[in-house]
Amino acid sequence: MIRGLKPGDVIGVLGGGQLGRMLALAAAPLGLKTHIYAPEADSPAFDVCAARTVAAYDDTAALTRFAEAVDAVTYEFENIPAETAAFLETKAILRPGARALATAQDRLNEKTLARELGIATPAFAAVDDLAGLRAALAGIGAPSVLKTRRFGYDGKGQARIMDASEAESAWEAIGRAPAILEGFVPFTREISVIAARGADGAFVPFPICDNEHRNHILSVTRAPALIAPALVAEAVSAARRIAEKLDYVGVLAVELFVAPHGQGEQVLFNEIAPRVHNSGHWTIEGAVASQFEQHVRAVAGWPLGSAAMTGREAVMHNLIGDEAGRWRALLAEGGAHLHLYGKAEARPGRKMGHVTRVIR
Amino acid sequence: MIRGLKPGDVIGVLGGGQLGRMLALAAAPLGLKTHIYAPEADSPAFDVCAARTVAAYDDTAALTRFAEAVDAVTYEFENIPAETAAFLETKAILRPGARALATAQDRLNEKTLARELGIATPAFAAVDDLAGLRAALAGIGAPSVLKTRRFGYDGKGQARIMDASEAESAWEAIGRAPAILEGFVPFTREISVIAARGADGAFVPFPICDNEHRNHILSVTRAPALIAPALVAEAVSAARRIAEKLDYVGVLAVELFVAPHGQGEQVLFNEIAPRVHNSGHWTIEGAVASQFEQHVRAVAGWPLGSAAMTGREAVMHNLIGDEAGRWRALLAEGGAHLHLYGKAEARPGRKMGHVTRVIR
Repeated sequence: MIRGLKPGDVIGVLGGGQLGRMLALAAAPLGLKTHIYAPEADSPAFDVCAARTVAAYDDTAALTRFAEAVDAVTYEFENIPAETAAFLETKAILRPGARALATAQDRLNEKTLARELGIATPAFAAVDDLAGLRAALAGIGAPSVLKTRRFGYDGKGQARIMDASEAESAWEAIGRAPAILEGFVPFTREISVIAARGADGAFVPFPICDNEHRNHILSVTRAPALIAPALVAEAVSAARRIAEKLDYVGVLAVELFVAPHGQGEQVLFNEIAPRVHNSGHWTIEGAVASQFEQHVRAVAGWPLGSAAMTGREAVMHNLIGDEAGRWRALLAEGGAHLHLYGKAEARPGRKMGHVTRVIR
Repeated sequence: MIRGLKPGDVIGVLGGGQLGRMLALAAAPLGLKTHIYAPEADSPAFDVCAARTVAAYDDTAALTRFAEAVDAVTYEFENIPAETAAFLETKAILRPGARALATAQDRLNEKTLARELGIATPAFAAVDDLAGLRAALAGIGAPSVLKTRRFGYDGKGQARIMDASEAESAWEAIGRAPAILEGFVPFTREISVIAARGADGAFVPFPICDNEHRNHILSVTRAPALIAPALVAEAVSAARRIAEKLDYVGVLAVELFVAPHGQGEQVLFNEIAPRVHNSGHWTIEGAVASQFEQHVRAVAGWPLGSAAMTGREAVMHNLIGDEAGRWRALLAEGGAHLHLYGKAEARPGRKMGHVTRVIR
């Protein structure tokens, strides 16, 4: 028997950023209340939820009260302390579960999982110290990228190595933290699979997303990605195998590279995000059920909705920093769907909103 | 110079029901906060807003604090006391304005306005006492309908008169309140025009809604209504003339009858709702910008969005009372968009939610 919520129940969300905000906006039409837990008093998600907790992620007393006040717990970002996740799992339904979280928040763990599942990955090796880095470089060669195993996002915690002589500076640059060295991939595209897996095991992927980054931050997503059907099948199969192996419940993002391979192309696993994902924002208007609705349905133990597109193509542009200043022009563009996240200060590199256009 | 809001500003909404809730859900993506003012502590809209006031509509101190805390005020129902509207208009931007509200909340005023604008209406006459009712019946005949001028909705405050001998019982039935007698219209359809008018005077109607009522409560809306283009033009023109005459800012619903007329058909004005309307709920998924987004844009003094449909047809079914118990089956129907309003108790006749299907 799958534990399921009923209308009127409360979903607790760890994290109060734009993802938590859009989760809350998707939960309400389904008759579910949202309780947001975040350390920052001005969290964007606080504007659209039924209940709020302002507390640190390691505040056991606050976490206990939170878990007791909600019917299920989820999160909008993967850097939840493992102890917090484990603690919450003893108190409430946690979806996705602590094991999925532990895998996805560690680059070495997730790449090892992919390799075990027979999913192609870039060359990689664990790096625990400078000697280990030199050994890894001897095997993988340069160019390559040194990345911290944990807490990296939007290009943070990464150092490019063009030559073995740069080993020491790269090791310093990432703060001498446990790391992974990855062979550089001469990719032609970056794609992502956003998919939901229900508590009943149903697996529902959205059409593949084609992602353009600028300064390591997602800039544009187009769906569906214009790639060969065989690559679509490979990418979806990779996401499905990962989700099933982790007994995953919720929305999962799997980022992949498309890279030359012999006469053709192949997809290479890059990383997992165990949550709704920026490259899935187009689904709010571009798919019948958005990634946020799918995640809420999964967390509630409910059947998943339809991931079919509502038009031929959807294009999402992030509004980074000052770009949100274009809001007046975007409002005046009839078919543009503007989303602003309610953040007071437009710092450089900060995701302030996005705009989606659906071509019908 | 039109007074306009900016992202981060606060829209105050009088009324905390499902319409206020869906307004708040539409305001957030545009970067606007919502402050809900309602007398009932368990108001559905309280679950999705940034700020709440629980107070009566004639609590001047609470209204003053509310008006000072927000950047514009709107409302989700027309039975706001005129004094409250007038008071708020001295403190804040009120959209739609007090004059539009005063017209729309009185059946005699709105029908008189329609007649003055050359819009066809059923025969009608003011009724202030029993003698007046008898005189009106002598002119209009039976069957006819006696309706209170104010505070009627979903068939409340109405009495059908099949014969002049029923005058006294009808007058008692509506509580001897100031009333209007309307000739019975042998209509073939009930339709509504949901349209937005911006602070800049732009007028943007949605495709016409075809409405089916059951027990005087809206049951099903289909869009676009399958009526002759000439009737569409007549209906839209009526809505536009009313909106312009009232210098209306926001979303307006105009309900009309389609009735036989000579060899063909005509549209007859029934009533105005100076707000977002149940027959416009299909626009959430069925139109590029929903009625809620259009209203928020208008109240904010921003350009209106596109009212184009996202599919060929949209059908909205209300979930009244026990019908909301079908939520599990509706969740399992891939293309169905379920909306539950977060009301705890499913009383008979209570609007608990709705479901929209878009045919693409």
